[in-house]
Amino acid sequence: MQTLNVDLGDRSYPIHIGPALLDRDDLIRPHITGRQVMIVTNDTVAPLYRQQLETTLARIEGLEVITLILPDGEAYKNLQHLERIWTGLLEARFSRTATLIALGGGVIGDMTGFAAATYQRGIPFIQIPTTLLSQVDSSVGGKTGVNHPLGKNMIGAFHQPQLVLADTDTLSTLPQRELSAGMAEVIKYGLLGDLEFLSWLEAHMEALMARDATLLTEAILQSCACKARLVAEDEREGGVRALLNLGHTFGHAIETEMGYGCWLHGEAVGSGMYLATVASQRMGWLDQADVLRVATLLERAHLPTHPPENMTPKAFLKHMAVDKKNIDGHLRLVLLKPLGQAVLTTAMPQAELEQMLTTECQSGQALS
Amino acid sequence: MQTLNVDLGDRSYPIHIGPALLDRDDLIRPHITGRQVMIVTNDTVAPLYRQQLETTLARIEGLEVITLILPDGEAYKNLQHLERIWTGLLEARFSRTATLIALGGGVIGDMTGFAAATYQRGIPFIQIPTTLLSQVDSSVGGKTGVNHPLGKNMIGAFHQPQLVLADTDTLSTLPQRELSAGMAEVIKYGLLGDLEFLSWLEAHMEALMARDATLLTEAILQSCACKARLVAEDEREGGVRALLNLGHTFGHAIETEMGYGCWLHGEAVGSGMYLATVASQRMGWLDQADVLRVATLLERAHLPTHPPENMTPKAFLKHMAVDKKNIDGHLRLVLLKPLGQAVLTTAMPQAELEQMLTTECQSGQALS
Repeated sequence: MQTLNVDLGDRSYPIHIGPALLDRDDLIRPHITGRQVMIVTNDTVAPLYRQQLETTLARIEGLEVITLILPDGEAYKNLQHLERIWTGLLEARFSRTATLIALGGGVIGDMTGFAAATYQRGIPFIQIPTTLLSQVDSSVGGKTGVNHPLGKNMIGAFHQPQLVLADTDTLSTLPQRELSAGMAEVIKYGLLGDLEFLSWLEAHMEALMARDATLLTEAILQSCACKARLVAEDEREGGVRALLNLGHTFGHAIETEMGYGCWLHGEAVGSGMYLATVASQRMGWLDQADVLRVATLLERAHLPTHPPENMTPKAFLKHMAVDKKNIDGHLRLVLLKPLGQAVLTTAMPQAELEQMLTTECQSGQALS
Repeated sequence: MQTLNVDLGDRSYPIHIGPALLDRDDLIRPHITGRQVMIVTNDTVAPLYRQQLETTLARIEGLEVITLILPDGEAYKNLQHLERIWTGLLEARFSRTATLIALGGGVIGDMTGFAAATYQRGIPFIQIPTTLLSQVDSSVGGKTGVNHPLGKNMIGAFHQPQLVLADTDTLSTLPQRELSAGMAEVIKYGLLGDLEFLSWLEAHMEALMARDATLLTEAILQSCACKARLVAEDEREGGVRALLNLGHTFGHAIETEMGYGCWLHGEAVGSGMYLATVASQRMGWLDQADVLRVATLLERAHLPTHPPENMTPKAFLKHMAVDKKNIDGHLRLVLLKPLGQAVLTTAMPQAELEQMLTTECQSGQALS
């Protein structure tokens, strides 16, 4: 087991990474202060890991544990399903000392975290991410929230967990497509801030995709450490933290246009990172070899590069206009300058962006 | 104009109290950082003060100002109406630098504050409270939120405003019943922490109820100062801040049972404070003369003392079981020990509480 401490003053918390962590009541016990616990999970994860977690919690004396199972998928990351968590807590008469445990991927983590942020104005929660995506990404940073019909992650709060348990054993049941989606975020950390890590990924991508346990643990640790460094510098996302959105501005536009859950978040981010790379080349900040290098690595992780085949430049621009990074109507993008270093910029002319999107949308792709 | 600074480190903000503040663009200007402003108000307040505020904001160069009008009343302090604020912000494509302005009473303030706390994970907001209740109470402390069918204020967040403008001119249009409701919270500050202020209120209650402007300004200032002291000590409500809930545990039970909006919040708190006083006497912490003194002052403010005539002890206990102050199922009450000093206690036996509620419910009263 490896442990990373996320340093946020009195909101600091540990991330434990390794096998068989779901059995470790000794790791969970110190982070539960009340007597009431609600596990929030989904109907895919519950049959796999619910009982194991409940058995572990049963070893902590005097706990009242209830479990709420939501339908699986980004399509359910909305206010209606958030309400089910709030209502479940109230029906069980859970007080402000209750703890929520998110057992699942990023959707469960974001929704459970937001429910915890807002139930009785804030209660503690624990993240047990069961996908590569959520282990490397959404378990660090305290971002919680739900989607709104008019935009992704538009309703939410910053709320830090008490503890993150990234049990690598849970990746054994992850579908291949979701492994790829998680790998998109891993690749992101190489692209935005660590050329050495990017080279390490290029050396090991096939072994990683074959789920080599030791390599995956290392990749998760490096990704979390990179994200934790940026978050510690900028908890409320005024500055460097926005760099973590590399690929996400384009990616969110894809998700919004296609309907949440059609392309996986990581797939949309994969394509979004490719588009950000092409945009960076247009700005003269990368050369053709860099673009090829990024495209090749994404393809080795079985990720899309080009946008969905029926996506138009107009659709991109419409959705990108409501991105949270925008200031007073000015579109801000995270681009690469050079490879291995991300910048937040308003320098790209709208016409240039449109032209680039027009070219890329012409070679749009369907997911296999 | 009087100014009180609420000291909360980098979340500190000023409260300005006095006449004609709605005209003061010089006071508002420094607290708006972006270019987009949404005024949230209700259909009672909008005809009275919307235009005045819009005219003031029009003097700030380059602002895009939109106004959202919600129906007036506690019955609309729910998720459905909160969603209208979120949707309005998204439809207007407001970014994370937009500012919300709450123009109205406590319901508008709580809902607007919560919308600000959660829109794109948090944007700034300004409180312009137009009722005595919200001027003395809900504009201080950063509590925001909405009701849930299973409990009052169960969904919310702590989010501090940039600025509070308490324009005493707006009290001229306040219905008498709402003036009384606000006075309940004013009296609360005398009861829970300041015997001298309690005596001052006893000396001036008729003049206050006749809306003597100078006396009202003083009462608002003293109340805000008392609350600000407690909040500064305990922003997240772990300790002394809970004392501010004097009368609220019983009061919330009344509101929940009767349906929100039947008794005004302040009326329920008035009765709740009387019940807390009687409970304190039962504990031997107050004598009969204290109870009479509290009842007399409440009556001079035209506030109810006894619970609603159709309210049962069972209904009280049911609703009090979900109070946020409870710890692991133990009921916690704010009582007086002695007059002028509040304590948070689990010392009252359940049987004693039931007996007291049975006696008091027998002399339940209807509002005139």
